[in-house]
Amino acid sequence: MADPIDFYFDFSSPYGYFAAMRIDELATRHGRQVRWQPYLMGAAMKLTGAQPLVARDLVKDYATHDLARTARLYGLPFTLPTPFPVATVAAARAFWWLNEQSIDEARALAKALYRAYFVEGRNIGEPSIVIDVAAENGIERSTSETALADEKIKTKLKTVTENAIKAGVFGSPFFIVDGEAFWGNDRVNQVDEWLSRGGW
Amino acid sequence: MADPIDFYFDFSSPYGYFAAMRIDELATRHGRQVRWQPYLMGAAMKLTGAQPLVARDLVKDYATHDLARTARLYGLPFTLPTPFPVATVAAARAFWWLNEQSIDEARALAKALYRAYFVEGRNIGEPSIVIDVAAENGIERSTSETALADEKIKTKLKTVTENAIKAGVFGSPFFIVDGEAFWGNDRVNQVDEWLSRGGW
Repeated sequence: MADPIDFYFDFSSPYGYFAAMRIDELATRHGRQVRWQPYLMGAAMKLTGAQPLVARDLVKDYATHDLARTARLYGLPFTLPTPFPVATVAAARAFWWLNEQSIDEARALAKALYRAYFVEGRNIGEPSIVIDVAAENGIERSTSETALADEKIKTKLKTVTENAIKAGVFGSPFFIVDGEAFWGNDRVNQVDEWLSRGGW
Repeated sequence: MADPIDFYFDFSSPYGYFAAMRIDELATRHGRQVRWQPYLMGAAMKLTGAQPLVARDLVKDYATHDLARTARLYGLPFTLPTPFPVATVAAARAFWWLNEQSIDEARALAKALYRAYFVEGRNIGEPSIVIDVAAENGIERSTSETALADEKIKTKLKTVTENAIKAGVFGSPFFIVDGEAFWGNDRVNQVDEWLSRGGW
């Protein structure tokens, strides 16, 4: 079987949310799996000097408009939440803990966290909200609480983030397909084309 | 007749070059004209705090790879020139001077300047190279020399740049279609869709 698509994302990334809702269907069409890899994009942004889209005045209005328009184009529900962006350590740790139990359940939780933030406007930067969302997905609160404080999971997220940066990842979403890197929701169509044609 | 598409670009922008080679065909399919508007993107970037793509180490390798890959996808010849980026005052002034004589000839010169820089690797940051390219497009060197020093043309480019920023333009390429702003070569497909559906 062909290698999986590596899908790197940050839970605070709206374009990551759009991609998360589309990438599995795309991969399935090409007989590929997707390896979901939430990481802490902030660590990469420190290296690149990049700022959140909404930090720059002239860009903020455009980005806000573009996000809403792009969501409508895909038929995805979307509201830019407040606060934005938020820290995503707890959300990413919850994912990586669950991923060791069940990859499918971890993916379902990732989508639920994205919906909680970008559809329902809940602040997933707060560990208590992450625990709420996990509970709605069948994970006992005490289990989540233990998981979020687990040293092994803390180390796992650090390692994932370090490895992502070593692999050249610096944005969200960011895809690596057969060694080829694609940055941004705007490259999903090129990922599709790349898989269809085996490169160009 | 429907309003023209405003196409803002900087002559030092590789994604602007890609868009320049595609936008007229797209507009024609929708029965639209394109109003080419070269401006000095550097003035907008000072306001947004944005840096050239290649100024950030982690991004530079990716951007270089992405440009070459995107050019291949479109079947456009492309080599990232050295130096990059360059000042585009002379190129833009030459355009605006010629645009007062003939919109079609100004557009042909714009494409020739883009090809000179991104295909032939000639430094269009140098006024003498701009004058060379204009000469190859039938404009006498003495005429270009006079034009580049013309106070009216200097003021014209300043005004175009100021008006672009007032209209919310901050990147290259940047399109305004019936009041709707689209930033980036990655939005050309959305411009196409927007014109087909009359918005969404």
